[in-house]
Amino acid sequence: MAKNKQVLFASRPHGWVQESNFKIVEAEIPALKEGEILVKNLYLSLDPYMRGRMSTAKSYASGMELNDVMIGGTVGVVVDSKNPDFKADDHVLGYLGWQEYGISNGKGLNKVNVSERVPASSYLGVLGMPGLTAWVGLIGIGKPQAGETVVVSAASGAVGSVVGQLAKAHGCRAVGIAGGKAKCDYVVNELGFDACVDYKAGHLAEDLTAATPDGIDVNFENVGGEIMDTVFTRLNPFARMPLCGFVSQYNSTEPYGIKNFGALLGSRVKLQGFIVGEHTDLWPQAMQELSQLVAAGKLKYRESVADGLDNAPKAFIGMLKGENFGKQLVKIS
Amino acid sequence: MAKNKQVLFASRPHGWVQESNFKIVEAEIPALKEGEILVKNLYLSLDPYMRGRMSTAKSYASGMELNDVMIGGTVGVVVDSKNPDFKADDHVLGYLGWQEYGISNGKGLNKVNVSERVPASSYLGVLGMPGLTAWVGLIGIGKPQAGETVVVSAASGAVGSVVGQLAKAHGCRAVGIAGGKAKCDYVVNELGFDACVDYKAGHLAEDLTAATPDGIDVNFENVGGEIMDTVFTRLNPFARMPLCGFVSQYNSTEPYGIKNFGALLGSRVKLQGFIVGEHTDLWPQAMQELSQLVAAGKLKYRESVADGLDNAPKAFIGMLKGENFGKQLVKIS
Repeated sequence: MAKNKQVLFASRPHGWVQESNFKIVEAEIPALKEGEILVKNLYLSLDPYMRGRMSTAKSYASGMELNDVMIGGTVGVVVDSKNPDFKADDHVLGYLGWQEYGISNGKGLNKVNVSERVPASSYLGVLGMPGLTAWVGLIGIGKPQAGETVVVSAASGAVGSVVGQLAKAHGCRAVGIAGGKAKCDYVVNELGFDACVDYKAGHLAEDLTAATPDGIDVNFENVGGEIMDTVFTRLNPFARMPLCGFVSQYNSTEPYGIKNFGALLGSRVKLQGFIVGEHTDLWPQAMQELSQLVAAGKLKYRESVADGLDNAPKAFIGMLKGENFGKQLVKIS
Repeated sequence: MAKNKQVLFASRPHGWVQESNFKIVEAEIPALKEGEILVKNLYLSLDPYMRGRMSTAKSYASGMELNDVMIGGTVGVVVDSKNPDFKADDHVLGYLGWQEYGISNGKGLNKVNVSERVPASSYLGVLGMPGLTAWVGLIGIGKPQAGETVVVSAASGAVGSVVGQLAKAHGCRAVGIAGGKAKCDYVVNELGFDACVDYKAGHLAEDLTAATPDGIDVNFENVGGEIMDTVFTRLNPFARMPLCGFVSQYNSTEPYGIKNFGALLGSRVKLQGFIVGEHTDLWPQAMQELSQLVAAGKLKYRESVADGLDNAPKAFIGMLKGENFGKQLVKIS
């Protein structure tokens, strides 16, 4: 029987995550019990939320214990099953973690249809959690109206890229914020945003003002910190602000102090923190719209694929630093 | 004809308001035109929002111009009328500003019933804007459920004192935050809050934790700054946060940097800035409940009354520093 390569959570990071916070091991694969399914993972999704699970700070999700297999969403193929609902060669989406093989009792495991048009990896991106997160935050919470201006940070990322394209599909002006000219060019030229502000260019406030001549009606927040503080100065009366992530803050030991919080009262803003798993009531509607847009070629996406689990820690650290370009995946086999 | 004493806006404050920012003058009272009403003001309301109107910073209300009569809510009595809807001796509520006499065309002027049980001044407090503000924020936006914990800052103030008593009437645990032992004793012993934290005692975080053993479900925000930043650390999942004011920040030239903003995502908080004038749809329901509570003796209030317009600037500055105790009024005549 094959060995199962796994990436374990070896130590808690203080500040930036280091490769030494992970340990790569090979484990035996136990025999299946009645009701269980053995899945060979094809792709692993790397996401910012994982950083939160590595710390003991209060969060919406409980932290991981040391020596756990790193958690993570995966898409794979069934290789053996003692569960009548799954059979060999089924493609399945689940949370089987940073490992080559995962065993599930079927709970939280969903069969997906893989085709040339819809490859396995898309279920970890545009048709997976990132796509659903974009839809729930933008449409479900942000409620954009045609003609309004939508701003999204981390605009070239897995969530942000869908947010902007959805905003365009709903008749809005879509403005991205991203780090570096290459990402901004991609966001405007390939994804079709109306504008993109490069926060690394050194004049964020001026550039954001120029890109949002009519102010901001919906801000989809992915990064927090100074970028968000600058966005606050451009919010229109009755702006909505879905809070999805604060990736700029996850590795900082000293949090950035938000100075323009008063704008939330001055502009009577509605702000709401959310996680996609608590809005499952919206998923069917979201999947319907996302699938239609993909089929119509109106929802483009880009993947950044690391090769093999040995490279997963490095790819994860790079993603936290914004070095990836598009949805960060690991190809496992 | 009597002269009309007025308090003018003389210069814009930088940081704390000074008495020199005001100028007291005596003006002629012009003859009434057709449709106009002359009102002798009895009481003037002093409120934190006035500080915002004195600055040029972006706010929900446009700033005042220099040499304008200071704006403000008043209750008074009609002394002359060329408007069929008003007659002499009618008591009226309006925004006639910091002056002894005001002239109105009737727009925004509302007749009120004054009795021993319901004195004129109550229409500037518990049955006026502060009471409506408390209701709209707590009930309309905060949506407290019986058994939940409601926290309100500036708890002994005109708005805060109503928020806590409303919370109790809805079966919640009511926790106040106020400055000094006298205010905290009043909030607990006379208004019936379950607890009150004295932020001047020097151990806000510990005291707030002790006062909110089950966390915070609704935070009605009046002060902002460091107090709000501390409240953020106690928010329960799905907490609601109506933003009503940031009085701690109005006179600061350097805004406090909010460090615990991440809690709004971690606890999936719903936050909403609001001003009571934009929620008039809720006023009838609010007035009904507030009136019933006053009639039943379940809504106590306290007034801090300055004597005469000459003392209005000093009283206003004192209120911004938290020196008042209860709703700050000026008795004009």
